[in-house]
Amino acid sequence: MHILVTNDDGVLAPGLLALAQAMREIADKVTVLAPDRNWSASGHVKTLHRPLRVIEVELEDGSFAWATDGAPSDCVALAQLGFISEKIDLVVSGINPNANIGHDVTYSGTVTAAMEAAIGGIPGVAVSLDKPDNLSGPVDFSGAKRAAQRVVQWLSQQNGLPAEVILSVNVPYRPAEKFKGYMITRQGLRIYRDELVRRVDPAGRPYYWIGGQVPTAIDEPGTDYGALSAGYVSVTPIQLDLTSSRTRDWLEERQFITSLDL
Amino acid sequence: MHILVTNDDGVLAPGLLALAQAMREIADKVTVLAPDRNWSASGHVKTLHRPLRVIEVELEDGSFAWATDGAPSDCVALAQLGFISEKIDLVVSGINPNANIGHDVTYSGTVTAAMEAAIGGIPGVAVSLDKPDNLSGPVDFSGAKRAAQRVVQWLSQQNGLPAEVILSVNVPYRPAEKFKGYMITRQGLRIYRDELVRRVDPAGRPYYWIGGQVPTAIDEPGTDYGALSAGYVSVTPIQLDLTSSRTRDWLEERQFITSLDL
Repeated sequence: MHILVTNDDGVLAPGLLALAQAMREIADKVTVLAPDRNWSASGHVKTLHRPLRVIEVELEDGSFAWATDGAPSDCVALAQLGFISEKIDLVVSGINPNANIGHDVTYSGTVTAAMEAAIGGIPGVAVSLDKPDNLSGPVDFSGAKRAAQRVVQWLSQQNGLPAEVILSVNVPYRPAEKFKGYMITRQGLRIYRDELVRRVDPAGRPYYWIGGQVPTAIDEPGTDYGALSAGYVSVTPIQLDLTSSRTRDWLEERQFITSLDL
Repeated sequence: MHILVTNDDGVLAPGLLALAQAMREIADKVTVLAPDRNWSASGHVKTLHRPLRVIEVELEDGSFAWATDGAPSDCVALAQLGFISEKIDLVVSGINPNANIGHDVTYSGTVTAAMEAAIGGIPGVAVSLDKPDNLSGPVDFSGAKRAAQRVVQWLSQQNGLPAEVILSVNVPYRPAEKFKGYMITRQGLRIYRDELVRRVDPAGRPYYWIGGQVPTAIDEPGTDYGALSAGYVSVTPIQLDLTSSRTRDWLEERQFITSLDL
């Protein structure tokens, strides 16, 4: 099994190294190709308007990685389009030090890297760690490493995933022995607490921060956040087909087409 | 009705002006707040790491607009968080001169601007025009303007959309009188024909373009592309809950949890 490891926090992020090390323990081969900078909350990007550079970098443990000035999804596209010549069996993205739950999945570079894999026909897994907001000091990725290994090993036994689907794995911040278990979840509801902060620069011109408090979420059983808050590893299958069948019915009940065709 | 108009091609794009003009004909008030540059294929962005500037610009018809150095979704966030003090009833994004079908919806700034509206509880509509790839000269937005007006007028009669849902409207490139009609569709399958193009700079260092031919799609009845190719305006309801229920069943059938909990 040849695994491509990428992330959205940049090639030097500790979570990337943790994931690369975890995958090396279970895969035949691991290739690391990640952005050269942080792309958090940057969404699903395809860089067509400028060329991409790729350089070699050495990670903290002396292992080798590729770094590009493209986005997380560009890393996956580069690899799939032939920059990495050896066939890739699985793309694993992370470890994001913060949970990707609820609406986060549409913003998250960690998740969209896995989506890009699925678009190219390769199974994709996004791994995120629900680090406490107030944590100071280094992040302990050991639980998330173990969860990533378990999920990836299971997938390799199944020969991958259904088409057009990825797995988003969110891991509670505790050692693997303290997990309550694993749970298949659905996307929950984030509560963003963004605030617009207006400031004035030294020349008297205004500028605006999207600030406020870190988001919270509704703690509902069966959801990603519900699982995390109960101490479970949350595994949410995410699909690339965003069609809302329920809203198709809603439109039909309201004679949408006949009203417009008049 | 107060409509916020934005896009992902930038504030000076002809499609934005066309949309603003179309909305002014049917709304009480239209506010334009759009990126100061092109953000195509840039995905769902929330800019938290740097402040945003907002400046006043004059559009080609002498009307007034706001331009920001943020992404399309940032424009909507800025407006929702209070930069625009008057309550916004609807966000309409476009007119993108190229169709947003199949997997495009996860990359598209046009679509993610509408998603950002829905996350904030405001109905969002993305409007895209299926301009022929080989068209030279100015783009005729008249059909797309008419389609946008019809859909928005219908929505205003319904008091909006179900929660967590947006409409992605794709319009065939023809005058409104030549539309075959409107069709409620599902997301189809894009066929991307990307190729990695390796070049060498004057200093001898390699760089890489994600190039290749423009994407095509599978022409299947009931899909966005199927509707367009038959001459219909395609209206696809897009949901923000990306959970794949089918894959939850697939995982359960394969004893995912019990295998991992062992």
